[in-house]
Amino acid sequence: MENKRGYFITLEGTEGVGKSTNLAFICEWLRSRDIEFIETREPGGTPLAEELRQLLLANRAEPFDPTAELLTVFAARAQHLAQVIRPALESGKTVVCDRFTDATYAYQGAGRGLDKSLVRLLEQQVQGQLQPDLTVLLDIDPRTGLERAAARSKADRFENEKIAFFERVRAGYRERAETSNNRFAVIDAGQPLDKVQADLAATLEARL
Amino acid sequence: MENKRGYFITLEGTEGVGKSTNLAFICEWLRSRDIEFIETREPGGTPLAEELRQLLLANRAEPFDPTAELLTVFAARAQHLAQVIRPALESGKTVVCDRFTDATYAYQGAGRGLDKSLVRLLEQQVQGQLQPDLTVLLDIDPRTGLERAAARSKADRFENEKIAFFERVRAGYRERAETSNNRFAVIDAGQPLDKVQADLAATLEARL
Repeated sequence: MENKRGYFITLEGTEGVGKSTNLAFICEWLRSRDIEFIETREPGGTPLAEELRQLLLANRAEPFDPTAELLTVFAARAQHLAQVIRPALESGKTVVCDRFTDATYAYQGAGRGLDKSLVRLLEQQVQGQLQPDLTVLLDIDPRTGLERAAARSKADRFENEKIAFFERVRAGYRERAETSNNRFAVIDAGQPLDKVQADLAATLEARL
Repeated sequence: MENKRGYFITLEGTEGVGKSTNLAFICEWLRSRDIEFIETREPGGTPLAEELRQLLLANRAEPFDPTAELLTVFAARAQHLAQVIRPALESGKTVVCDRFTDATYAYQGAGRGLDKSLVRLLEQQVQGQLQPDLTVLLDIDPRTGLERAAARSKADRFENEKIAFFERVRAGYRERAETSNNRFAVIDAGQPLDKVQADLAATLEARL
């Protein structure tokens, strides 16, 4: 029997938007339908890529050059694709990934103000033709999200950014959603959780 | 008085070629002529870039995807340029750097067999117009070099490569030297050390 490429789902959103909770909801939904899947995240997803993640998130005195940060993100992605994502998709498994390249457009592109054409160049070199089949964007006012995130744990290097940074990130995400034809499902994460998850379930029913 | 950009010297060569000894010789030569300089190395040269270096050199079970390795090298380079090399050159200091982008063409390009055009693309994005003014290539039969390196310390992830890898790296370096007009000085590192250093001194006298 021919192996059909697995379905590639990514979950995106700014800090405190409820990604973990809703990622668990997606996985439970797939499990209940006996769909074979793996759950992974970016940056990270392999031991080596997780080392790069630590390096990206650590607070330090030395400022991280924006281009160096962008290249580190794509280094982790190339590793993750080679070791985990491509093999899983090729074996027919569904892949659920917490953040992917849209986050790079949003954080390093819109957030840091890096040239989008450089992000696109690296995307082409690292991903080739591969794109997610469905990207769920959990959208929220960054102020609300940051309050939730602050209540949860100590801030990492990204969470320590100022509100204006997250406003740019959110705008970057929304621009991606508008220009990426039908790949995106944008869900209002400011709603009560049961409403968010009803929207999420409806999206999964419609798409998979 | 106008600040003249500093002179940028890089030192290249395969394992065990005598880079450390000859780097010290170059620094001594500069010191004796009261030329203000900094000594640095790649990958590395800043605390963050040195973290990336450790990640590149560590032996691990997980294979390092060649594109991920290349992007990690350039991430470290972008950081090093922003934090150390450009500020030093702009303040008029000479920079002496143990390995730079020619090593990327040699190791990741020729050695790993990665497309040279991808190396060139990243070079342009990260360096812009900046190139070394003088690149000293210490050239040696890789077998001789590896014997020297093995006598010295435990092998890192690169030194653990097979001889055919280093033959490709050496060929990659020599190709760079042939096609980079007069930037390179190729020195036969198989000669006795006093001869190598006489050649090195003559090169520095002629160029600086």
